[in-house]
Amino acid sequence: MPTPTHSFAAHAPDKPLAPFDFERRDPRADDVSIEILYCGVCHSDLHFAQDDWGMSSFPVVPGHEIVGRVTSVGPEVKDFAEGDLVGVGCMVDSCRHCEACEDGLEQYCLNGMTMTYGSPDRHDETLTQGGYSTFVVVSDRFVVKMPDGIDLKSAAPLLCAGITTYSPLKHYGVKAGHKVGVIGMGGLGHMGVKLAKAFGAEVTLFTRSESKIEEAKSNGADHVIVSTDEAQMEAAAHSFDFMLDTVPVQHDINPYLNALKYDGTHIMVGLLEPIEPAVEGFNLIFKRRVLAGSLIGGMPETQEMLDFCAKHGITCDVEMIDANYINEAFKRMQQGDVRYRFVIDMASLKDKAA
Amino acid sequence: MPTPTHSFAAHAPDKPLAPFDFERRDPRADDVSIEILYCGVCHSDLHFAQDDWGMSSFPVVPGHEIVGRVTSVGPEVKDFAEGDLVGVGCMVDSCRHCEACEDGLEQYCLNGMTMTYGSPDRHDETLTQGGYSTFVVVSDRFVVKMPDGIDLKSAAPLLCAGITTYSPLKHYGVKAGHKVGVIGMGGLGHMGVKLAKAFGAEVTLFTRSESKIEEAKSNGADHVIVSTDEAQMEAAAHSFDFMLDTVPVQHDINPYLNALKYDGTHIMVGLLEPIEPAVEGFNLIFKRRVLAGSLIGGMPETQEMLDFCAKHGITCDVEMIDANYINEAFKRMQQGDVRYRFVIDMASLKDKAA
Repeated sequence: MPTPTHSFAAHAPDKPLAPFDFERRDPRADDVSIEILYCGVCHSDLHFAQDDWGMSSFPVVPGHEIVGRVTSVGPEVKDFAEGDLVGVGCMVDSCRHCEACEDGLEQYCLNGMTMTYGSPDRHDETLTQGGYSTFVVVSDRFVVKMPDGIDLKSAAPLLCAGITTYSPLKHYGVKAGHKVGVIGMGGLGHMGVKLAKAFGAEVTLFTRSESKIEEAKSNGADHVIVSTDEAQMEAAAHSFDFMLDTVPVQHDINPYLNALKYDGTHIMVGLLEPIEPAVEGFNLIFKRRVLAGSLIGGMPETQEMLDFCAKHGITCDVEMIDANYINEAFKRMQQGDVRYRFVIDMASLKDKAA
Repeated sequence: MPTPTHSFAAHAPDKPLAPFDFERRDPRADDVSIEILYCGVCHSDLHFAQDDWGMSSFPVVPGHEIVGRVTSVGPEVKDFAEGDLVGVGCMVDSCRHCEACEDGLEQYCLNGMTMTYGSPDRHDETLTQGGYSTFVVVSDRFVVKMPDGIDLKSAAPLLCAGITTYSPLKHYGVKAGHKVGVIGMGGLGHMGVKLAKAFGAEVTLFTRSESKIEEAKSNGADHVIVSTDEAQMEAAAHSFDFMLDTVPVQHDINPYLNALKYDGTHIMVGLLEPIEPAVEGFNLIFKRRVLAGSLIGGMPETQEMLDFCAKHGITCDVEMIDANYINEAFKRMQQGDVRYRFVIDMASLKDKAA
């Protein structure tokens, strides 16, 4: 049976989010039905609600940092059972048979992943709806287990901010002995600092704001460089193995390339737009440097990341909010006024809807 | 004793090259003295002669694709003897003790390599002068042996065009089963096609010019894509493991990024300027693609490349010229009117100077 679900949805690009009731699908044989407990608020939720990328359909329920409790499972589901605490991240389906899917890298599915919200469902073509809601139904391949003992509220953002920074650090083999720069101290950046540190690297946070120096150090950064200070940037030349660039708006990456050693790698996870000012060819060629992109992570490594975080006591710094605070939260997020992730307590949505 | 040397030199950015007599240094203990037989004409010779990069001093003798015969060696030289056929490429010295030098990657020397022409010598601060000349004196570490049986004339350009394309193909592990695109069919591009083919890859040449289709196939390309044909470019989407981009002028790399598989690598060896039009962030992020630079190659791999080319019967397609043809050769090179490298027969310079 379809399940009545309460949510907050964007109804038009220029309107605030508002309550929205709809039904989740009748579960399929491989589906896990999940009562949502918490959902993180990611900057891309805002982009999508405002149709900044020109790909939104309305109404749309944002949210892809979902933690909840299993209420039932379909007959083909083997790895989950009623009562399990589980997570759902940025995608809920993929073709499952292409090279990328077979490699467990469903985010690079050659036939296109199905995003947690705003994508057509592969079976019935309805639009997927995200986690600012009381309930969700997701195919088991795209559900992860929350490790025992992890704090569920502050673990929710790991499903996007955590895996987005974990995946490239793992892929490129960051380890003890490496010097890693993390650019930007937001939701992604503060996770990048914690994770790179847990991988054993010496971590430097690059920030435009002197006010973030102490925060960065309390999050584990060994050093902080104020990127607007040319002397500090010049002193950093040729000294880093990796840069993890979490900045989601256009910025000049050439000074950061210059801070990489030869064979160093600059990894972009935040900027989807044209890279301007332009990358100087000589900054890549003269030191065999690499500019790379990375998108969230595959399902096996998302589970691995959660287990890694539980083992190392890593969670996201969060500010808990009620669902009806979401429009104010979007405003504060745009102003950079959050340390470092809002998380909606979905009990508040159930209360309001009751 | 210093050695009187005839050459062709640039005397000012806006003047044609003209004969220039000077003296090569008194050999040091580790020096190899070389009678130059042939020297290739690289596009960067022209840039340097015209001071396009704002770093030229005059007079300057261009030329860094040098093949010659050893006339004498210093007392510390063990690996070369009078009569040996040898090569000299783009650099003649480096600090020798930094991490890059210890890795045999002298081109990335942390203290800066000494280029074959236009660099201050590390001992006496005189400017180095290149291979459009009858004689050169080079420290043994920066001299390579010409393999037995290789055609010396057509091997000269291997010292720059060959190693520039060999090094990244080797570094990134190109092998059978890989699909490699080579962008541009000039001095570098035609070597890229031959080398990628010899590495076992399936090779596609991308060219703006339909006229180069047959040439590319005769050089070993399995396929040719005319890059100005949008339908051909779109059909190539998501199909390549590597792109070897040899184009030395600004061009839009986004259509080539789109032609890479997920995890594919676009290697730039030609463009030192800002990469414009701008690289689209999503082209890197959504498929975990890599944009990389690569500069010539280190001395051990330069020797390895020559041996590889000799074994596989690979040389450069060349047009032999007399030294006094150099200004006409520069003009034709600017018009793309060379298949694919001019090589100066230095006998002609000795005749003229006699």
